[in-house]
Amino acid sequence: MHATVLYGERDVRFEDRPDPAILEPTDAIIRLPVTCICGSDLWPYRGIQAVTSPAAMGHEYCGFVEEVGSDVRSVTPGQFVIGSFFASDNTCPHCRRGYQTSCERSQPVVGAQAPRMRVPLADGTLVGTRDVPDADMIPSLLALSDVMGTGWFAAEAARVQPGATVVVVGDGAVGLLGVLSAKQMGAERIIAMSRHASRQILAREFGATDIVTERGTEGVERIEQLTHGVGADSVLECVGTQESMLQAIAATRPGGAVGYVGVPHGVSLDGRSLFFSHVHLHGGPAPVRRYLPQLIDLVFSGTINPGKVFDLVLPLQQVAEGYRAMDERRAIKTLLRPS
Amino acid sequence: MHATVLYGERDVRFEDRPDPAILEPTDAIIRLPVTCICGSDLWPYRGIQAVTSPAAMGHEYCGFVEEVGSDVRSVTPGQFVIGSFFASDNTCPHCRRGYQTSCERSQPVVGAQAPRMRVPLADGTLVGTRDVPDADMIPSLLALSDVMGTGWFAAEAARVQPGATVVVVGDGAVGLLGVLSAKQMGAERIIAMSRHASRQILAREFGATDIVTERGTEGVERIEQLTHGVGADSVLECVGTQESMLQAIAATRPGGAVGYVGVPHGVSLDGRSLFFSHVHLHGGPAPVRRYLPQLIDLVFSGTINPGKVFDLVLPLQQVAEGYRAMDERRAIKTLLRPS
Repeated sequence: MHATVLYGERDVRFEDRPDPAILEPTDAIIRLPVTCICGSDLWPYRGIQAVTSPAAMGHEYCGFVEEVGSDVRSVTPGQFVIGSFFASDNTCPHCRRGYQTSCERSQPVVGAQAPRMRVPLADGTLVGTRDVPDADMIPSLLALSDVMGTGWFAAEAARVQPGATVVVVGDGAVGLLGVLSAKQMGAERIIAMSRHASRQILAREFGATDIVTERGTEGVERIEQLTHGVGADSVLECVGTQESMLQAIAATRPGGAVGYVGVPHGVSLDGRSLFFSHVHLHGGPAPVRRYLPQLIDLVFSGTINPGKVFDLVLPLQQVAEGYRAMDERRAIKTLLRPS
Repeated sequence: MHATVLYGERDVRFEDRPDPAILEPTDAIIRLPVTCICGSDLWPYRGIQAVTSPAAMGHEYCGFVEEVGSDVRSVTPGQFVIGSFFASDNTCPHCRRGYQTSCERSQPVVGAQAPRMRVPLADGTLVGTRDVPDADMIPSLLALSDVMGTGWFAAEAARVQPGATVVVVGDGAVGLLGVLSAKQMGAERIIAMSRHASRQILAREFGATDIVTERGTEGVERIEQLTHGVGADSVLECVGTQESMLQAIAATRPGGAVGYVGVPHGVSLDGRSLFFSHVHLHGGPAPVRRYLPQLIDLVFSGTINPGKVFDLVLPLQQVAEGYRAMDERRAIKTLLRPS
């Protein structure tokens, strides 16, 4: 089959690769009706994260089970499944605590920008849907695999409560779905920090009540104004830079919470400033597995439609163009269709 | 009157100072039957925190109201009161949220190592007791003013739950009272990190089930062993150094929480390490005012006796010796009696 490989900065190739195969008795092979590109794929694409050897790309996936290893019990061929971007056994103490991305046997899932892929620890990682979903529902289920689950975790880590005033830093797919998550959790006011018209529109559609275009100190001042000098109850940090992190902390009221899910790149926090800010801080790689059953129900019931973040659809073989479009911010998120 | 002034590194003087007076209509003057030295007083005493001009020392206090300003409504002369080390109006949005140490009108309270002192914002800051306490109860009430309230906040920030496994980093008065707080909150296992025999004894008396004498990486390894590789549910950081903070984070399980109350000195946190640690982080100057009513009840009912942390009693005029004893770790905490 042909699949996506990143060779170095801005060097994405769609090339012949071995078909995935069962390597461990706990593996499953799944066929992907759609796949996609993640904002976090742009870190290595842009060379901010070094690529030391050709890397099979893609970690968001849903699809049909084709084959399972001899130890797999919970999913069967033909079933439609969704998994997290981290494989987990879902039985270790960390998994049982709901932190499957810190599973003692956790391993990253790779190679999802392809027609088929191998998923390790299938029993712990994959969640089957009751019914085979309609084709138009599949993009929303695909979004659960990472960006929707990550936005949800950001909102939960930021302790969003009914009636809360929430700020979302970052208008990528995760930030936008953070808006949607905060809305689902009952936030009354949701301030999206965004400079891009198309993203502002989607943010409003997902529940944003205010848009702030300023950043850094000016952005914080704007939040202060909007909250009458108090600060936000909850701030979702969905970028991962030093500026965005400090902006998130400074926009939060004392006793409020920052949920941070942007993978930190060059972020360093001064202990004393953090101390006197009085904020709660929680984040990390989102334990998407914890939320999958609940989020699948919300998609099947039509309550949420996170697939709306896909604003560019391309055939999988044009994956390189998909990366370019996201890099140049022409697209929020690219959906890819294997032929 | 004579009161305590710090002139510079290790230069504590007990000297003639003007009597405290009502400066604002919201002030109260209180007479202090006892007073004490705080572990945080050692930062400037040791020169780690610069002393730029002679500083009136002492921020922990309880005693009898002598005089109140014309706007004071909630306390009256003759009443026995306890206050926090930060004055607060207790009406601003941050106070109402329970973060009185971030009060919009917050100001540090100073000059408590004296026979009498001025307390600003008396209505918001002071809590009266129903009855005049017995003399033997007063040290425990004095402890509520800072160290007990701070230990309690550390435990709450560390999300201590019934049945939890808790680690306490730091065996000063705050750490020891963090042990007591965790016990009150129902922790099942409380691991105190301490190298000092007298403190270990008090830690056990307050509820510690295990003592760990190792520090840094070795300390973290010991916690790993004691928790079967999982880590602690809750860790109370009661020191404020880079080593103690990193030790606290590393000893916490994913999804667990660090409550940090040691004022950070030279602490810097790497965003990426924090991200992948999956811990909750919360702390800051403890909003003691929030807890005073509850803690006063616990002292009056005899449920807690935090005054046990005072293991050296001196006349106030020997305050310099009190500092030396704490600096040299001959005393956990010095109680001072004005003559």
